[in-house]
Formats: sequence, C-alpha cells, structure tokens
Amino acid sequence: MTAYPISELDAHWRAANYLAVGQIYLMDNPLLAEPLRPEHIKPRLLGHWGTSPGLNLVHTHLNRVIKERSLEALCVWGPGHGGPAVLANSWLEGTYTETYPGVTRDADGMAKLFRQFSFPGGVPSHVAPETPGSIHEGGELGYALAHAYGAAFDHPGLLVACVIGDGEAETGPLAASWHANKFLDPVHDGAVLPVLHLNGYKIANPTVLSRIPEDELDALLRGYGHDPLYVTGSDPAQVHRAMAGAMDDALDRITAIQQEARSTGADRGREYARWPVIVLRTPKGWTGPATVDGLPVEGTWRAHQVPLAEVRENPAHLKQLEEWLRSYRPEELFDSEGRPTPQVLECLPTGDRRLGASPYANGGRLVQPLPLPALDLFAVPVDKPGSTLHEPTRVLGRFLTQVMRDTAGQRNFRVVGPDETASNRLDDLYDATGKAWQGMTEPTDRNLSRDGRVMEILSEHVCQGWLEGYLLTGRHGLFSTYEAFAHIVDSMVGQHIKWLKTSRDLSWRAPIASLNYLLTSHVWRQDNNGFSHQDPGFVDHVLNKSPEVVRVYFPPDANTLLAVADHALRSRDQVNVIVAGKQPCFDWLPVDEARIHVARGAGIWDWAGTDDGAREPDVVLACAGDVPTMEVLAASALLREHLPSLAVRVVNVVDIARLMPHEEHPHGMTDTEYNALFTTDKPVVFAYHGYPWLIHRLAYRRTGHAHLHVRGYKESGTTTTPFDMVVRNDLDRYRLVMDVIDRVPGLADRAAGLRQAMTDRRIRHHDWIRAHGTDLPEVADWTWPY
Amino acid sequence: MTAYPISELDAHWRAANYLAVGQIYLMDNPLLAEPLRPEHIKPRLLGHWGTSPGLNLVHTHLNRVIKERSLEALCVWGPGHGGPAVLANSWLEGTYTETYPGVTRDADGMAKLFRQFSFPGGVPSHVAPETPGSIHEGGELGYALAHAYGAAFDHPGLLVACVIGDGEAETGPLAASWHANKFLDPVHDGAVLPVLHLNGYKIANPTVLSRIPEDELDALLRGYGHDPLYVTGSDPAQVHRAMAGAMDDALDRITAIQQEARSTGADRGREYARWPVIVLRTPKGWTGPATVDGLPVEGTWRAHQVPLAEVRENPAHLKQLEEWLRSYRPEELFDSEGRPTPQVLECLPTGDRRLGASPYANGGRLVQPLPLPALDLFAVPVDKPGSTLHEPTRVLGRFLTQVMRDTAGQRNFRVVGPDETASNRLDDLYDATGKAWQGMTEPTDRNLSRDGRVMEILSEHVCQGWLEGYLLTGRHGLFSTYEAFAHIVDSMVGQHIKWLKTSRDLSWRAPIASLNYLLTSHVWRQDNNGFSHQDPGFVDHVLNKSPEVVRVYFPPDANTLLAVADHALRSRDQVNVIVAGKQPCFDWLPVDEARIHVARGAGIWDWAGTDDGAREPDVVLACAGDVPTMEVLAASALLREHLPSLAVRVVNVVDIARLMPHEEHPHGMTDTEYNALFTTDKPVVFAYHGYPWLIHRLAYRRTGHAHLHVRGYKESGTTTTPFDMVVRNDLDRYRLVMDVIDRVPGLADRAAGLRQAMTDRRIRHHDWIRAHGTDLPEVADWTWPY
Repeated sequence: MTAYPISELDAHWRAANYLAVGQIYLMDNPLLAEPLRPEHIKPRLLGHWGTSPGLNLVHTHLNRVIKERSLEALCVWGPGHGGPAVLANSWLEGTYTETYPGVTRDADGMAKLFRQFSFPGGVPSHVAPETPGSIHEGGELGYALAHAYGAAFDHPGLLVACVIGDGEAETGPLAASWHANKFLDPVHDGAVLPVLHLNGYKIANPTVLSRIPEDELDALLRGYGHDPLYVTGSDPAQVHRAMAGAMDDALDRITAIQQEARSTGADRGREYARWPVIVLRTPKGWTGPATVDGLPVEGTWRAHQVPLAEVRENPAHLKQLEEWLRSYRPEELFDSEGRPTPQVLECLPTGDRRLGASPYANGGRLVQPLPLPALDLFAVPVDKPGSTLHEPTRVLGRFLTQVMRDTAGQRNFRVVGPDETASNRLDDLYDATGKAWQGMTEPTDRNLSRDGRVMEILSEHVCQGWLEGYLLTGRHGLFSTYEAFAHIVDSMVGQHIKWLKTSRDLSWRAPIASLNYLLTSHVWRQDNNGFSHQDPGFVDHVLNKSPEVVRVYFPPDANTLLAVADHALRSRDQVNVIVAGKQPCFDWLPVDEARIHVARGAGIWDWAGTDDGAREPDVVLACAGDVPTMEVLAASALLREHLPSLAVRVVNVVDIARLMPHEEHPHGMTDTEYNALFTTDKPVVFAYHGYPWLIHRLAYRRTGHAHLHVRGYKESGTTTTPFDMVVRNDLDRYRLVMDVIDRVPGLADRAAGLRQAMTDRRIRHHDWIRAHGTDLPEVADWTWPY
Repeated sequence: MTAYPISELDAHWRAANYLAVGQIYLMDNPLLAEPLRPEHIKPRLLGHWGTSPGLNLVHTHLNRVIKERSLEALCVWGPGHGGPAVLANSWLEGTYTETYPGVTRDADGMAKLFRQFSFPGGVPSHVAPETPGSIHEGGELGYALAHAYGAAFDHPGLLVACVIGDGEAETGPLAASWHANKFLDPVHDGAVLPVLHLNGYKIANPTVLSRIPEDELDALLRGYGHDPLYVTGSDPAQVHRAMAGAMDDALDRITAIQQEARSTGADRGREYARWPVIVLRTPKGWTGPATVDGLPVEGTWRAHQVPLAEVRENPAHLKQLEEWLRSYRPEELFDSEGRPTPQVLECLPTGDRRLGASPYANGGRLVQPLPLPALDLFAVPVDKPGSTLHEPTRVLGRFLTQVMRDTAGQRNFRVVGPDETASNRLDDLYDATGKAWQGMTEPTDRNLSRDGRVMEILSEHVCQGWLEGYLLTGRHGLFSTYEAFAHIVDSMVGQHIKWLKTSRDLSWRAPIASLNYLLTSHVWRQDNNGFSHQDPGFVDHVLNKSPEVVRVYFPPDANTLLAVADHALRSRDQVNVIVAGKQPCFDWLPVDEARIHVARGAGIWDWAGTDDGAREPDVVLACAGDVPTMEVLAASALLREHLPSLAVRVVNVVDIARLMPHEEHPHGMTDTEYNALFTTDKPVVFAYHGYPWLIHRLAYRRTGHAHLHVRGYKESGTTTTPFDMVVRNDLDRYRLVMDVIDRVPGLADRAAGLRQAMTDRRIRHHDWIRAHGTDLPEVADWTWPY
C-alpha cells in the first residue's frame, strides 16, 4: 500500500472523468456555471465513454509513479477509441495547451476542448496522431502490446505501459503478442507493463477473459510467462489504494528484474524474466449513469459509447447528464477560471516526463540518421550485363550486416521477420548480431542471443507491430517476409499509412524513419510451396493508400536492390515496399548505373534494345520485377536474332509509382517524361511482376494507354518449375515475342514463322518439364547473348 | 494403456513414413528392388519432411480409434505443408486410388504417387484441395483450429481432430482460436480434439512453446480452458503406447462431456466443458537422418524440408537415403507387388470412416439447399422512388431471421461477426436464435445461449476461420463486419478463393455454399470512429483473385440488398462480397425491380434521368454504392432543375464485375452491352463507393474509357458529418454537377452560373458544419423531388 494521498489521485481521476464526459456531450457551459440547457449539448453525440474511466484511472496512477520514481515512460492506450480520456489527461497535464496553444488550460480552453471533440474540423474521437503522447490509434484492435514491445526494445531506460482492453484481448495479434516477453532483453531493452483492463464487455457482448474463472485467467497469464497482480472493484477509494499498491509492486519487480540482469550480465541463466502484469477489473462506464430509462448501463455493454443518447430532446436525460457531471464535483477540481486546482495537478510529473510530452511518443525528435556504408563496398561487379548471377537478397544481406555492425553501439536498427531471415538469404546478419531469444536453449541452437537485433517470431502481425513501435519511437528497421504473406498485415500497414499521412500534416510531429518491407520468396519462385504462396497483391493494396506515404520498388538485380535499400533506409515518414528475389538473378547494372536508375525510377536500357535513339522504336518492351526483366531481355534477344530490322526499346521500371500522373503521386512522371520513354503511339508490351491490371490502373490517363498491353500474374499457380510459372501466366519470353508480333503493324505476315516457332517452343517446354521435372536447358542455361 | 498391438500401429506408421520419404526423393525404383541410383532420384527435391513423421503418427492413431469406436471423424492438418504424410495415408487406406484410379495401391501406383509429388503437372507439395480428406491447405499458417471448430459446429456426431504445429501456434489467429472452446456446445456440436505437436522448430528457429517450461505450458493450456494430456518421446514403441493411451483417454473424456451435457440438457450449469488437448512432443524429422555431413539433422530445424539435399550428386547422400528408406523395413510393409500388407492395413477403418473418404471433408456431398423465404415478405413497399427511408441491413436482418428460424431443425446456417451483429443492425436475428456462449453469464446479459447460431468473438480471423470450416463441411453462412476491417482477413480470403478455384476443377469435389460477406458500417458512415474505420479496399483485393470465384455487389437500397442476399445464399463455390449501409437509406426500387436489377447487374434508371431514350444522352451519371447513388440522384435533380435541356442518363451498377470485359469475368458485359449503357463517346461521371481507380481498372478496355471520369474515396477521412465525407472526397452532388459542366462540350459557358452556385454551396456547407456540427438542412432533409 502506498502512502500517497488517495484524495489527490481521486481528484485527478474525477477531473479527467469530468473532462471526458464533457467532450462527449458539451459544446458550451463547460463548468456548469448555469443549469444545462439543450443548446449546450452537441447536436451529434459521438464518442466512447465505456473505456474512458479505466483509461483515466491508469493515467492518473501512472502519473503518480512516474513522478515519484522519476521514470521515463510512455503509454500505449490499446482502447484508443477512448479518445476523451487521453485528451482529458493531456489537457490536465498541460501538454495539450503546449501542443495546441489555442486550447488553453482554463474555462475558454476547456470549452474548446469539449467542442472540438468529434466535431467537424475538430479532433478525431479516437486517440490519434493529433493526440499528444500517442503512438497508437486504437481504432483497429489488436496491436497495442506489439507496439509496446517495439517501443521498449533498445530503450533500456524506458517504461512502456500498455493498456489492453478485454475486447482487444480476443484478437489474434494481441493473443500472439503476449509471448513477446520471450524476446525482451532486460539488459538492453526497457520494460513493458501490460495492464489488462477487464471491464467486462465489448460493443454488445461480454468478453471472453472477463467470464473465465479467476484461476483460469491466472493460469493463462502465468502460462504466458507473466506474474499477475490483481486490482478489482468498483469503490473508487478501494480501487485507488489497490491500484497504487499494484503499480508500486509492479515497478519494484521490474526494477528488481532489470537490476539483477544488468548486474549479472551475460552470465545469467537461460530463464527469461517473469515480468509483472496488472489485471484491472472495474465496471464498464464506471461512475457513469447506473441506469438509463430503467435499463442497467454502468457495468454493462450499454455503456460502450454514449450512455445517455437523447440529451437534447429528452429533459430526463439532460437532467441525468447534469447530475452525472456534477457527481465529479467540478467545483472542487477547477477554479473559477476553469483552471485545474493544485490538488488535481499534484500527482503530475513535469516537463518531458509527462506522458503527453514523452519524446518517445514523438520518435522523430529522437531519431538519428542510420550509418549507411558506401554501396560500392557491397556492389557486385558488372562488366557486361547479364553475364553473372547473384542472389540479390544475399548481396543486400551483406550491406545490412554492415549497418548492423555499425549500429552495435547506438542499437537503433533491427530486422524483423517471421522465421524467414535465413530462408530469405539475409543470414550474413548473424555475423553482426544474433536472433533475439530469452528462452531456453539447446546445444544445437545457432545464432540465438539475448541481445540480438534480428527478431523472428512466426507471426507477421507481431513482426509488424514490433517494427511499427520501434520506428514510432525513433529507430530504424526492415521487415523481410514472403511476398504472399505480406497480406497478413494488409490491415496493419493501412493503419500505419494513415498514421503517417496524418502525422505529416502535424508540424509538431517530427518525421520518423520509414517502414521498409523486403518482399521476397516471391510469386515466381515458390517452387516448393506452390499456389498458397503465390500472391503479388500486397503492392496493389498499399498503392490504394496515400501517395505521399507509399513507395513501391521492383529492383531488377542485386545492385539495384542495394541502391533502393540505401534510398529507403534514408527516407522518412514513408512505407517503402521493395520486391526482390532471393534466387540467383542476372546482374544487369553496375552500381553507379543502378543508383542513377533508382533515382530516375524508370529508364531506357539502350544496350538491351535495338532502337538507335534517333527515331521512335517500333515497339517498347517494358518490364518491372526481376523475373519479368529476364523474360523481356530474353524476348528482346530473340527479336534481335530473328527480326533484326525491328527497332525494339527496352524500358525498365524500378519505382512503379513513376507510371502515375505526377499530379497523383509525388514520384509520378509528367506526360512529357512518360511519352519520352513509352511513346504515345507505339505498342508497349509490359511484363510486370504482379497483377497486370495494376499497370493499367496507374497508366490509364496516359496518351499511349490504348497501346499498352500488360502481362503479369493471373492466379495461375501451383508447385512447378520457375519457367513453367511464367508460361502458365503468359509472361514468358516466347509469349512476349508473340505479343510483339501481334501488335506491331505489318509484322503478322512477316513474322508468321517466328510466331509459330514460339508456339512450338512453348509446347516443347510443356512436354519437357512433365518428362524431366526441370526446365528446358535452353531456358535454364540461357544468358544474355550480346 | 491400450491393448491394441503396437506392432500393427508401428507397421502402419513405418509404411506412411516410407511413402513420405519416397515422395520427396524418388521418381523410380519405389520398392528399392535394386540399389538406389542417381537416376532414381528426382532432379529437384521439394517437400517438407520435418513434420511428416508426426502427422503420420497422428493419422495412424486416429485410424485405430476411429475403427475401434466407429467414429465419424475429420482431421485438420495444420502443418499442411507436410503433404507427403497425408498423401501417404490416403494411399494406404485406399482413398487415394478411389479418388484417382490411375494411382493404384500397388508398385505401379506407388511409383506414380512418388513421381507426381511436387512435380510439374503432378500434385502440390502441401495438403491441398487435390488431397482426399482435406479441408485445409496449411501453407499459410494460423487457421487450423478455427477451421476445426467451424467443422464441428452443428455436427454433433463428428470428431474433428486438429494437428497444430508449434510454428503455427505462434501466429495470432491460432493463438486467438484456443478460446473457441467457449463457443462449442457439447449438445448440438461435435468435438474438437487439438493435438499440439511440439517438434521444437520452425524453418530456422526453435519454437516458443517448445522452449517454455513444462509447468508454464501446462498453465497456458489450462488457462485456455483445456485439460492437457502429454505424449513425449523419441522411442517409437514407447510413443506408440503413450499416444494410444492418450487417444483413448481423450476420447473417453470427450464422450463423458457429451453424454453429461446431452443427458442434462438445458439444465446444466454455466461452466463450459474442459475438453482434452493432446501435447505430442517428438523430434522434428523423427526417424530421418540423425546427422548429415557431420551436422545434427533429426531433432533440429535442419530437418524442416529435405534433410539430404544432394542425393543425385553426392554418393554418400545417396547411400544415406537408401539406408534411411530401408530403416522402415519396406519388405515387411509391402508385398512383392507393392501392396500394403494386412498388418499395415489392420488399423484402418473402412468406407466413409476413413479420413480420406470423410464426407465432411467434401462438404458439397452434404450440403442441403437453404430454405429461403419469399423476398416479398420482407421487402419494403416503394410506391415512388426516394420517398421513404429504411436501414438496409435491418431489412436484411428480418430476412435472415426467417432463414434462421427455418433452419432451427436442420441447423445448417450461422451468422458470424466480430461483436458487430447488433451494431450492423441485424439484431432481429435474436428473435430466432441466440449468440453462442458457453461461458459464465450475468443477469444483465441478453441473447446469449448455449445453442445460439449467431457467433461473435472480437477476432475477424476466428470468425472467418469458423465460417470457412462450417462451409467446407457442407453448411451455409454469412459474415457481417465493418467494411474497413475486412482487410484483417485479406490473406485468409485469398487462401479460401484459391481453395475454391482449385476445387472447381476437381470433379470429385462437390460444390459448397459460397462464403458471403456483408460489409457494412462502411467508409461513408463512420461518423463516430473516423479515419481508422474508413477503408473500402477489400473489394479491390478480392477482385485481383480468380474471377470464377469472386462476386462483388453494391446494392443501392434495402430491396436490392435483399435480392443480392437471396442470390448469394443460393450460389455455390463463390465468394460474394456485399457492401451495404446500415444507416437510413432511400428506397429506390420495388422488390420486383430490384430482383431484375440484380439479375442484370447494372441498368439505366429511366425515372432518374432526363434522356428520352430516343437519342443518346449528353452525359451519363453512373453510380455504385448506396451513398454514391444518393449523390448521383441529387446531382441529377439539380441538373434537371437548372439545365432542363440537358439529357442526363443515370446508370446504377450493383454487380461491379459487370464492368469487366466478358472474356475476363463470367459476369462481364460484352462491349455491345456496355456501350448500350455507357455510350462510346459521351462523358460518363461515375460516382463509386470505393477507390476510384478500381473502376478504371475494370473498364480500361472499353471504347468509351477515355470519357470515363470517376469519383470515389481518396483517403480523405476523419471524424465528421456524412455529407462532409463526400465533400472531402469530391463525391458530393455539387461536385458531380460541376464535373458534368466541365465535361459536356459547350456547357462551360452556358452553365457558368450554376457552376459558381455549386462552389458556393460547398463553401456554405464547409462553414455550416464547423458552426453547427451537423449537415446543412438542404442536404440532411433532401429528398428525390420527382
């Protein structure tokens, strides 16, 4: 039990509750200077009351321990739809006014705080980028705990509290995140203090965890490797006492774990720490109306949003609202000017220790440029295009290894992935760091280490959440994953893009490092796993989102991948999706050319075509992606051999947004630029890595669009050979040659023999692979002949 | 301990292991009639050995208990990448030959079985639709347990075993699925027997659950509400004895739970059953090579795929493979003709009791048509378009309620959703059934019941997995969810579409009921939740997938929604995405017209435009979606009022795939049909519900595409009023009128005044909502004036 005066904590909590209710209901008369009248009430009542008193309680008690213990802390508010609570607390502690000087900490500012909430032109109803101290939106549930861990990694001095609603606790990503405690190093990382808030209900139903027996809940949390502390009740004074005690207990245990680990260092045993978790069981909509119109509300799902729904129209509701507001005794909490009283403010820490001012919640304030080595040290030599092969991701891995080495001191770079780092051929990283692992080990284990900065857990959700939390708190990273399974985090990346989009418009939010994806083991090379692993659609998903934020790259070889990665790791406030293969791939560009190619985003590969530059080509062969590039080059070689008079231009696109109009995307080409590459009237046969219609969707406004013919993946997949995959999807060199013949005016007759030869080769391929199980030697051993 | 002869179980297991290894390596000499030579070995070694012996063990022991207890059973193989194991078992039990008569149960068939595996033109490396007895692909991990529960609901006589790999156990969806046991009714549902297979490793790492202390694992499983049984070891005889005992124990407990619940009926207490779970801890790659090239393989991650990688080139590997294969003593398992010996087959059940023949795994064999009531009973009367308002989903809810009532006996229809059924205004359903809930209850609870067929858990993953399992085993259902959060299951629906696409080509797989989504609480009406809840991109994602399977509908009013739902619930082997609002929406079409409109998929609304049909219109106003339809109608009314001589045609699109070329989608229009609606040369201003470029991607091949101008959602979202949302995204009536003026030749001058008036109204709107917090009365109270 703490000796701290409960009355001060309660005053702060009541003030926060008052302010939360005020935001949901009031557009005037904030201090109840006069009896409430309908015109004081907002015309549309929007907001979530149910979770707010619980969030306020946690915030109040965090304030106290942060102040008493001089903690550096951050809180992830999982029930982020309880925006009124976090806004209320920010206003009370003064960080709201410091961020938005128009909303002063007085009656005038209180009126603005109330009115702007969920009001057109005002602030969103959820915790959002606009909310000081937040790194987590909380509208889409499931990611709070993963975000909290991401924030804590490599911040040894930081306490990350994380409120988990019992609704959110039912989601998969949250359920998986509990095991993140096996990846938190008590020496190099900070602490995560989960607060599982069982208020019993979701929108319309009881929650699972609130309705299992207490011993089962205890077993579950111990099964997760946690040491639970319980705070239960509905009597404020008793709950304050219990919560204060639990907070102290939890922080004492955290300190003990960290001190022990940090004093014994590397010699400590292979048992991971049993960190505390607080289970807070209080009524939903606690301190709100007990009943409304004869139905129970407090402590039920009916308290989820707006307990009194007809306040403007129904005088009884209006009266009940006034009673509810007055039950917090605002006259004790705010002076006649509307300023919080000293008693209310007593529990608050000061300066950057206030949760709304935490620099960790505004990671751009902390971010340091990543030390990036010279690309030339890692580039592969290319004397002649297409004469050597490298695994692009392995080449990238060596570059990343150097980054990992060069950040060994500052520890601000991590690579995450769902158990695929080695499969994706980035395993040189283990020369520089290990895989984070706090669990038991066996003698056969390799590369596991307590302080490793490669993070592997078989959950794309947790990987994504970790990385988001890590970036949002001022660090750098890369997520490598199988291309098809990036869809698992479609929804998460959508939310992160929304966060970044909004943040870019907030001058007080400093830019953070971009979220970088390496999508590999891609659709064209899933020889082993087949159809379920073949899906290039993640880029379609992200390209629907804010163009300011989204970048998508298809480097065609190892050096271009290096140049793209270098660019991505230097960028800010973006989501960069890099699609690149791990299988041996021809080297086309020396690194200096690769760098220029990436800067331009798309360009003519003179050496690969036959147009002399003096006149327009007869046909443009365009490509984006490593496998399509190889097929286009092979098709170009066939055309050069068999139709030497045909002027073929080869265009490679590495930055796919270049195809968009420049009014639509910051990387989009002007029409002049586009036409200079693709012409306005010549046939363009475009071999694209993914779903072909994406190219049309990007380029439909171009003058030459009617002449654009795109080949790509069309869901014709299975377990088969690499070349069979391109044949099945009509992306192969032979089909591309046929496409050229079909589209260049006058070629149909002249090249009828060649067209038939192409068909014959496709048939021969078909028969061959069924007989031999491998690709035709003419394909498997093909090299660029010029 | 069982009295069953372990030697017979072991013989079956060895045979299955032999066949699994054979599939990965051999293309000839299946019975080792001669020493292995390089030419017997496949040129590309693909497949996953690591999990196969464990799957074979479970299959063997399931065979025994199914036979002894005359069980109806199904098994969900979570580690579905262990295709060789399940194929081996199917071949042994004869179901493979019955399904594919060319692959006989003899030496010749064994050679085919081996050769075809992961071979071009052969069978995929994973458990797949092609695999007899499977309902689960297992390539994308996480959904096994949810699928198993879905299969068990409303199949009271069924045992669903479910193997969960310890890799899969790290995923979010799987972690959330453990709590599905609180939703399984022991009276009306079957049983799920999870087998958590801890083989210790993923691709390259130890697994979390294999490296936590045993007491913590036990606490975790008890915390999930399960009663664990442990089988641990690497000595086959001992493991066989322990597994047989655990299986008997588990099945005895299941029988006891079911008997008790079924005899006490509704009077039983509110404690849910503690179902057994088997924890099987055996080495990864068990019985495979202990070491290869001096490195440990059996019992490590190195056994994940192909333990001996260079068998063709390296004589030592070849020799080791032969020793490995001979270690199973094939001469005891197969006679000289390659037929399994009686000892091997002794444990097998017969007929449809064999797992590969389970009708539950071929749900189309079981599916019964859903009793669908006449739409007229639920339709809203429409005497005049746009004169009344209804909440479309509430109208649909009454229809679904009748379906729920009419299936009370046959229990083959469920509605799933993440705690949003009431929010989505489908709560009339509770007149017919409850919400499934086996947990503790409180007096304030409403509509919870043990046998309810509305399923609510705050996990879209679990909802989706349940419904997939339910449909795949021969029933019907609907998933209602907030539109934005459908992205959470992007990846899952992609896998389900792949499953259906492949199944459609397998004549032995009978068609199953379609997976029907109701996406509501959509982008235009997230007044309360704002930006995080605004994302219409799920339809973009599914429209990338196989057109044979995918259908997307935007019913513009209540009656059209009814007609779409009626159609969707009758369809087979499809994924139907229905996007419809829950907010009051104008009724445009009487139900008979709605039905015709849905059958046509798109049509001219004569009454809404001003072209007289005799000549081409000056402009086409097209719409898809309820809110865009209202804005187009309002724009049409403005044009009629202010530019009465302009011939305006209104086209509504309900089935969005109609826009695609008919060669690309079975619902696609011919060019003649398209041109008849949209013209070839007149401006088309298209107001679309989602991302506008989707319409371009669908229609880019149409002659009139250059004249197509699309408005839609462009990620400009926040917490605001409904009309402000359309204004922010330039989809509002005023902007549409301006678009018409800007695009119809000759209008710019003539209608300059109207254009200015439209701009003024947008400014007035902007000022009004910031002052009042509600939409302008001229918008809020608008009705169709004609």
